[in-house]
Amino acid sequence: MQNDAITALNASWVAPVVPRQQLWADFSVVMHQDRIIDLISTKDLAEKYPHADCVDLSGHLLIPGLVNLHTHAAMSLMRGRADDLPLQDWLQKNIWPLENQVMSAEFVKDGTLLACAEMLRGGVTCFNDMYFFPESAAKAAIEVHMRASLGILAIESHSAYGMDALDYLNKGLATRDALRDESLISFCLAPHAPYSVSNQTLERIALYAAELDLPVHIHLHEAIDEIEQSLQQYQVRPLKRLQHLGLVDPHLVAVHAVHLNTEEIELLSEHGAHVAHCPTSNLKLANGLCDVGALLKAGVNVGLGSDGSASNNRLDILAEMRLGALLAKFKQNDAGVINVHQALEMATLNGAKALGLDQKIGSLEIGKKADIVAVNLNTLELSPCYHPLSHLTYSAGRENVNHVWVDGVQVLQHGQLLHIDQDALIKSTQHWFEIIKRDSAC
Amino acid sequence: MQNDAITALNASWVAPVVPRQQLWADFSVVMHQDRIIDLISTKDLAEKYPHADCVDLSGHLLIPGLVNLHTHAAMSLMRGRADDLPLQDWLQKNIWPLENQVMSAEFVKDGTLLACAEMLRGGVTCFNDMYFFPESAAKAAIEVHMRASLGILAIESHSAYGMDALDYLNKGLATRDALRDESLISFCLAPHAPYSVSNQTLERIALYAAELDLPVHIHLHEAIDEIEQSLQQYQVRPLKRLQHLGLVDPHLVAVHAVHLNTEEIELLSEHGAHVAHCPTSNLKLANGLCDVGALLKAGVNVGLGSDGSASNNRLDILAEMRLGALLAKFKQNDAGVINVHQALEMATLNGAKALGLDQKIGSLEIGKKADIVAVNLNTLELSPCYHPLSHLTYSAGRENVNHVWVDGVQVLQHGQLLHIDQDALIKSTQHWFEIIKRDSAC
Repeated sequence: MQNDAITALNASWVAPVVPRQQLWADFSVVMHQDRIIDLISTKDLAEKYPHADCVDLSGHLLIPGLVNLHTHAAMSLMRGRADDLPLQDWLQKNIWPLENQVMSAEFVKDGTLLACAEMLRGGVTCFNDMYFFPESAAKAAIEVHMRASLGILAIESHSAYGMDALDYLNKGLATRDALRDESLISFCLAPHAPYSVSNQTLERIALYAAELDLPVHIHLHEAIDEIEQSLQQYQVRPLKRLQHLGLVDPHLVAVHAVHLNTEEIELLSEHGAHVAHCPTSNLKLANGLCDVGALLKAGVNVGLGSDGSASNNRLDILAEMRLGALLAKFKQNDAGVINVHQALEMATLNGAKALGLDQKIGSLEIGKKADIVAVNLNTLELSPCYHPLSHLTYSAGRENVNHVWVDGVQVLQHGQLLHIDQDALIKSTQHWFEIIKRDSAC
Repeated sequence: MQNDAITALNASWVAPVVPRQQLWADFSVVMHQDRIIDLISTKDLAEKYPHADCVDLSGHLLIPGLVNLHTHAAMSLMRGRADDLPLQDWLQKNIWPLENQVMSAEFVKDGTLLACAEMLRGGVTCFNDMYFFPESAAKAAIEVHMRASLGILAIESHSAYGMDALDYLNKGLATRDALRDESLISFCLAPHAPYSVSNQTLERIALYAAELDLPVHIHLHEAIDEIEQSLQQYQVRPLKRLQHLGLVDPHLVAVHAVHLNTEEIELLSEHGAHVAHCPTSNLKLANGLCDVGALLKAGVNVGLGSDGSASNNRLDILAEMRLGALLAKFKQNDAGVINVHQALEMATLNGAKALGLDQKIGSLEIGKKADIVAVNLNTLELSPCYHPLSHLTYSAGRENVNHVWVDGVQVLQHGQLLHIDQDALIKSTQHWFEIIKRDSAC
């Protein structure tokens, strides 16, 4: 986008998310540089912005860019290597050995590039990553012009990336320092899980979180085993343990939160903690269902995550939005739980809030960053269209995402990525395919 | 296809479904007229079939056409009119009043045409329909060259189509007589549900089923209300009532089967009855989860249905296959329940079996009808590909369906329908949109 150029996206519908539960017909989102500078009825556009470059998006619905609140992006190179296995078998006997064999800065760069391409094509403009070599993930995100929140990882076990938790933390903090001027990049502290991180490390993370005002992104209450192990080792359930260590506060992003009792839901609510709901992953690993209806009722902020490609296997927040809405109805035995506006909030603003980015992204508002997705509703599968947000939630798929802007820059046009050669990217995956096929036992 | 022409589809992978759990690399499916005449390694093709017309499908996986075991196709014109409502509110206060206002032969023809177009584009080659004016649905299916099993409907309440159950049955049977030479069309008896059809009508249907050897397609044990009402009115649960009326046998296709106790699962198994599992619909209307793992373990044949567009809202059997596999793991608390081969069986052969069509369709075997789907796995989202059936089940979507053949005739090529003008079809939906917007209170 040129410095002085004003661009107007003239759409059939705009769902701004803020103000809540609105849907505006024949509306324009006006952008200048990286920002949204106006939202205005298209009929009034020419008078107010006579020199705007107009993009005709008739038949399209504009929504804020989707936020993927939990993923391990580079695992896209392992998609389909280990299906139909329970969490610990999947992780300890398949994924970890495989990671040990292939892990490198190059692996993370290439895998994250692939994941970013997939996510952008599906309307995801920001992802919250937890993985090794976050500096490589950052490079990939910057290369495709995507927003990323990167994990300052902590895990006690060593890897090609780090020796121990302290080493991981130091490397992650150094990466954060090195990238502090990148407008697309932010950071979370990312202790892997209660069962893989010590009290000492968690205490250190609590200090960093307070000092640096960083979110803490952690797998929590994902599986029954995790809770039983915690009771045995620490005599408390994991969430309580985190509370004792000073980690239950508005920085906490509890990923999965499948197994919560009423007291624990209250605890999250009282302390302003967030949940990253990953419905497909929870079903696929047979971990259970997060009770989103109860969490929302208690006032807990719930965003949506895809988890990594090895346990989903789509980095597809529109699909998680649909599944999240459907499962919440089942779980509460009430078809009215999660309406289509709430589903979109979970997929956008709620994720941004959890990452501390809701002043910048998550809704289409004047002054916010122009992270915008145009969904084409003028297709055979979506005709006729009585209710664009119903179609978005229950009928559309990522195949309907047509155009995407991140930070004011168009990155997807008619389904084609503008900052990366898709065919070359597909070919590059073959390199890792050969290595993984050759080296891995699974 | 020309009479003497032999066509070979040369694919990177073929999943024939029969024999079970097979995946053949670099394989060809050879067709002549409406039949599969051979399955052969592509390297041996030129020698055996030197004059075959070859279709290069590198990067593609060939699977049998998907079977949608339960839908109300014409309801695609109502998609998104009534979301987030429980079953009886949805049906009695929204859908039935709406249907009363718009129902006609033309509505069913146009709605079914739209549904057929959507289904073909998603790799569904055969659907089992339950709706008014089945002769109109048949016309639509024949027009787009799609296989359909049509319901000989029975319901006690009157409509624009019929006065009473007997009238519906007579009209349905007359339609069956009129279309007996159509190779793409078959029929089921289709009593609507236990709560909407009398004992007298059900007894008549049992007689017809035996006499004409027709499947009986009925909503069954979908919601708790249905079971409670049956206990009150008939002092037995609906399945038991059907058994007393002679309807529990290999003709029975029990749609939904969400609420079954152990004895009822045994009853279905012992009598060779079938289940049409509609996972999205069950979640969306908050009815519950069919225990597919338990049914399969008991030897019950389970196929997949989309249900109608008003309660799903995608006529997308690939999506139901994915969701069915995921939910079965959750329900049984075992990530190993439903592997990717079983998921494909449910979406193809099991549906064909339930419809009594498994001698003709449901697998890629010599002598069967050439109902074939080519799924493009050579996309960014599906690269690299370690396991094509994992990708089909967990990663691909209907957007990856590239080519479709029905009865030996290509109906979809590079995602474009060959027997219908897609743009004209989208426009035609506008006519019904205006009527439904104007006339309906909801």
